Amino acid sequence: MTDELLERPKRGAKADPGRMADAIRFLAMDAIERVGEGHQGVPLGMAEIATALYRDHLRFDPAEPLWPDRDRVVLSNGHGSMLLYALLYLTGNAKIGIDQIETFRELGSHCAGHPEFDQEAGIEVTTGPLGQGIANAVGMAVAEARMAADFGPDLVDHRVWAFVGDGCLQEGIGQEAISLAGHLGLGKLTFLWDDNRITDDGATDLAISEDVPARFRAANWQVIEVDGHDIDAVSAALAAVREEPRPALLACRTVIGKGIPRLEGRRGGHSARLFREDTDAARAALGWEHPAFTVPDDLLTAWRATGDPGAAARAEWLDRLDAHPAAGEFRRRIAGGRAADWQAPLDTWRTRAADIALEQPTIASSGDVCDALAATVPEMVVACADLEAPTNHKRGRRAFTAADRSGSYLHCGVREHLMGAMVNGMAAHGGVAPVSVTYLAFSDYERPAMRMAALMGLPSIFVFSHDSIGLGRNGPTHQPVEILAAFRAMPNMLTFRPADAVETAEAWEIALDRREGPALLALSKQPLPALRRGAGENLSRRGAYVLAEAEGTRSATILATGSEVSVAMAAREMLARRGVSVAVVSMPCWELFEQQDAAYRRSVLGDAPRVGVEAAMRFGWDRWIGAEGTFVGMTGFGASASAETLFAHFGITAEAIAAAVDGRGGNPRAAIPADP
Amino acid sequence: MTDELLERPKRGAKADPGRMADAIRFLAMDAIERVGEGHQGVPLGMAEIATALYRDHLRFDPAEPLWPDRDRVVLSNGHGSMLLYALLYLTGNAKIGIDQIETFRELGSHCAGHPEFDQEAGIEVTTGPLGQGIANAVGMAVAEARMAADFGPDLVDHRVWAFVGDGCLQEGIGQEAISLAGHLGLGKLTFLWDDNRITDDGATDLAISEDVPARFRAANWQVIEVDGHDIDAVSAALAAVREEPRPALLACRTVIGKGIPRLEGRRGGHSARLFREDTDAARAALGWEHPAFTVPDDLLTAWRATGDPGAAARAEWLDRLDAHPAAGEFRRRIAGGRAADWQAPLDTWRTRAADIALEQPTIASSGDVCDALAATVPEMVVACADLEAPTNHKRGRRAFTAADRSGSYLHCGVREHLMGAMVNGMAAHGGVAPVSVTYLAFSDYERPAMRMAALMGLPSIFVFSHDSIGLGRNGPTHQPVEILAAFRAMPNMLTFRPADAVETAEAWEIALDRREGPALLALSKQPLPALRRGAGENLSRRGAYVLAEAEGTRSATILATGSEVSVAMAAREMLARRGVSVAVVSMPCWELFEQQDAAYRRSVLGDAPRVGVEAAMRFGWDRWIGAEGTFVGMTGFGASASAETLFAHFGITAEAIAAAVDGRGGNPRAAIPADP
Repeated sequence: MTDELLERPKRGAKADPGRMADAIRFLAMDAIERVGEGHQGVPLGMAEIATALYRDHLRFDPAEPLWPDRDRVVLSNGHGSMLLYALLYLTGNAKIGIDQIETFRELGSHCAGHPEFDQEAGIEVTTGPLGQGIANAVGMAVAEARMAADFGPDLVDHRVWAFVGDGCLQEGIGQEAISLAGHLGLGKLTFLWDDNRITDDGATDLAISEDVPARFRAANWQVIEVDGHDIDAVSAALAAVREEPRPALLACRTVIGKGIPRLEGRRGGHSARLFREDTDAARAALGWEHPAFTVPDDLLTAWRATGDPGAAARAEWLDRLDAHPAAGEFRRRIAGGRAADWQAPLDTWRTRAADIALEQPTIASSGDVCDALAATVPEMVVACADLEAPTNHKRGRRAFTAADRSGSYLHCGVREHLMGAMVNGMAAHGGVAPVSVTYLAFSDYERPAMRMAALMGLPSIFVFSHDSIGLGRNGPTHQPVEILAAFRAMPNMLTFRPADAVETAEAWEIALDRREGPALLALSKQPLPALRRGAGENLSRRGAYVLAEAEGTRSATILATGSEVSVAMAAREMLARRGVSVAVVSMPCWELFEQQDAAYRRSVLGDAPRVGVEAAMRFGWDRWIGAEGTFVGMTGFGASASAETLFAHFGITAEAIAAAVDGRGGNPRAAIPADP
Repeated sequence: MTDELLERPKRGAKADPGRMADAIRFLAMDAIERVGEGHQGVPLGMAEIATALYRDHLRFDPAEPLWPDRDRVVLSNGHGSMLLYALLYLTGNAKIGIDQIETFRELGSHCAGHPEFDQEAGIEVTTGPLGQGIANAVGMAVAEARMAADFGPDLVDHRVWAFVGDGCLQEGIGQEAISLAGHLGLGKLTFLWDDNRITDDGATDLAISEDVPARFRAANWQVIEVDGHDIDAVSAALAAVREEPRPALLACRTVIGKGIPRLEGRRGGHSARLFREDTDAARAALGWEHPAFTVPDDLLTAWRATGDPGAAARAEWLDRLDAHPAAGEFRRRIAGGRAADWQAPLDTWRTRAADIALEQPTIASSGDVCDALAATVPEMVVACADLEAPTNHKRGRRAFTAADRSGSYLHCGVREHLMGAMVNGMAAHGGVAPVSVTYLAFSDYERPAMRMAALMGLPSIFVFSHDSIGLGRNGPTHQPVEILAAFRAMPNMLTFRPADAVETAEAWEIALDRREGPALLALSKQPLPALRRGAGENLSRRGAYVLAEAEGTRSATILATGSEVSVAMAAREMLARRGVSVAVVSMPCWELFEQQDAAYRRSVLGDAPRVGVEAAMRFGWDRWIGAEGTFVGMTGFGASASAETLFAHFGITAEAIAAAVDGRGGNPRAAIPADP
């Protein structure tokens, strides 16, 4: 295909390619000047690089931005959003008309300050927080390879191109991406590095002096250094990377702010405010005589023609798809739907777990569920950050490696942040159902990526083990006490803390059903007894439910989650022996419970005094127990000892709950301890 | 000093150094076997490396673990905690007796699952989450260089040694540490890499194939490759790194689990459970005939002697300190106290701000305060992650660079996570008052380090700008809505959101006064009007206070923080015109308010209905307004538009607050939006 690309006439060949690049420049400058803010550095510095990519290499059809076999373009330096918007307008994306460019950074515009996930608009992922985009790109390249292994190159044969600045490469997540992409030999992944030697603070040598190409070479990348303003040189380099089995870095030497005399090569080229004098000066310097937001017809025609080969390729691809024996399965996976009977093994497992009163760690139940679903959810890919044994989700899966793309288990190494962003990249790519697994304490490392999943509304699934002091002797570094609250506060993130095997299976069912956003499962290291008997309705869908009603009038309602639900049940029994009748409510997912109607919520919460129980900080619990309510939980960080010892030490016991129901205690309000 | 060290007789020279290393091995093995869990990989694999370091190079005096000019030792691979505990016991730390080794991982033992910050016990920092330790070490090396610039090598001339495993180097934060340490030329920093080619999942080549030494060389490190079980070779390499101006990686080829035949070089060497048969087999293999937890006298004597040169060096150092003209200032800084009149410029600034009703972004006020304190808090070091201009805290400071160690501003590059951990390392080192500055949205990148600050109780200060939708057009990636809640949930982290210039100065005063833990300041990009007049008591110390009492009986109490306090004041005025009398309470720090006595809290909160106002999610607010209370704030992520437009769009306005007081609105409860 490369030869064909090189030999055929350049797309839009009649137009001067330098003028095509300038069209990007002026759309960006005019939009930024109009609104009074933005980042001109990227669109002005990378205009030729983008022109070379789109003119000669990018596989895309502007008429169908959702074409599954399109190349993916990620603007990892998302602050340079006008580069992407200009390209989308110039190539004819239906959602990005000139009116959108003219309303850059205004409420409701598709051209927001940073690119916001909208694949119909040609925005593959939301970017802005640096490093996320290139890590997403690694995930996309994995998804491509995984899909190609299942469906063959006739249906899946595309590349991933990421625009990237110095900031993305300084971020730890960017470094993780370099390391793992090289290890996995993701040959269809190319980073286009805007090597302009300027960041927000000024010269890059304020903060970095490493040999960036050498760093990539150390991680088994192909590196090509090129003048980023020489379109033909860039195009030739892009052709060369296609020949390579390794991922490639195109180190493009560029001049930031190129085109605006006052700012070229200077710190202000990054995002200094543009004034009319700047755009006037640029027009004079570049001989651009067209009014603001106006691209002359010949250039627009040339740009629109860049999509022609892709349109033709898509037509051929559609024929191949129609003729493909697995067309139905391919379409299902791309649409993000599940196979018709996908839940059957889950239901079987859940029924059996209830029947035999399965007592085991909820992380083990999660592994069981994943394993059981391997046949009916073949699109699932499980990523893990070097904790295979203690999380145990590999089971029957083979590793996805440089040599074997058919595996569905990703050894991510100790790189949680990359893992989270790769999961997002896989989810955004489509065709796979990505899951990440590590300890809950390390969710903090993954959190910036998890926030992006919530913001984009991607169906990423984040599984965590070791969810509380119940992990025991590894101590407070590993014991979450504030992390559940931190995720419950995050919009659009479903936070599950299942109480037993059945609730774990229910959480999985909901997470795999969900299309509009991510879910996380906080699971136990320690075994938890079976609480739910019989496999009826998925009660976790309601977020909270009465697990055990009071016998007679409720004296109190005990609300608990996860491992503390069984402690609450023990308290209930203890109280019953004393003639005190209480209900126990399990609350596996607060967000879903909040969405129930008021009548249901009232019926669950009841009118009796409430006691909240969770081996975590009280923060957030006042929603359910009131500001004056009693809470049995943690008031600070944990400690290193056996789980049994810790639950007793921190007073999270049936006795303490019973005493709290009696009004004789529970922990005091969460406060800053004198000695953490 | 190096020559002297090499020429003098080896410390403990009469003992066989291999047996000294074995003493580490058996203490570790016996402790791990006894409790039934732990990580033998590090102590067994790094025993010879540690022996070489302590025997021939480490500058330390076991009799005074707090000696300011001691070398710092960081166990970044903290799961190998028994290596450190064994060394502390063998060298005679007073807090680590054999009873502590024997209670490894039991509640209350100094020998916790992972090392927990206790410098008297010889534990320089808490480690466990991978990569944190080496990033702390970078901060320590910066603090050493900074202190040396101020006080000269007579008082400050020590090194930082970090034990490090593959995991630390895979983590992004570790990669950030490599990059910046090389850039800053931190020649006194040495990483001792346990290159055992095994991680928790098995062979490292499951997840990494990069050339690690080449990666370090690309970042301007000296790299020495050595057999990690050859004590003399390691010692010679350690001597060589002392001659170099660059930081050094000692790549030590080791055998994981060395000494236990069943586990040597195998995955199980990392942390497979040890049984009596394993320790018996190790005893047989190594010819170790001593009972569990027993080190023969000759070896213990040899180990204890390793501290002798340090004890002598400390005696000489104390003489130099006594004779030093800046002895008093040195002692003050090391003790972590402030100069007697340190607040004077702060008070002056605060008074003036109140007098002139200073209206500006609170991030600008923070910069003003930092600048004003440069003279009286010379120990302050400000680190920033490539946002110098928009956060503006450099001002009169010079950069700390490879060439100039007297600067107090650290250009960290786009490496937030490293920055946070460096701040912790500086705080743990002592002698400097470290501050980090970036945008609040990027606190997610820094969060794992911030948690460590809270857990250790370090006086790290974390300053953030761009704290809400008030940042405007950069859009939802940059607009925190859940982040305040996420930090309020974290134990021992004081979370400030000041409403104006005076509250910003107050927050700074409290943060700089605090010794027992970190503080964060969430500050605005947009200008905020002056609300506090006259510079009396630091009202922020009480966490919340009545900013404007109702005229007459309160109809309602409006509770607000930060930029929304002025919106609440506008609502109060609007209501007053309608004859409705409300109080406005400013709540800059929930945690401090929680610590006030109940009577004060009641007096502030009042009995009237309450309305909470914050440009953030409701999560956590029920504590103050009740589960049924009215909240005016966000219900999901933000958007890209001007700040004015956004506050109107999301209904965070005086009109909305007034309507909420009237019972006619406010936002519905926080719920998962259908379309994020």
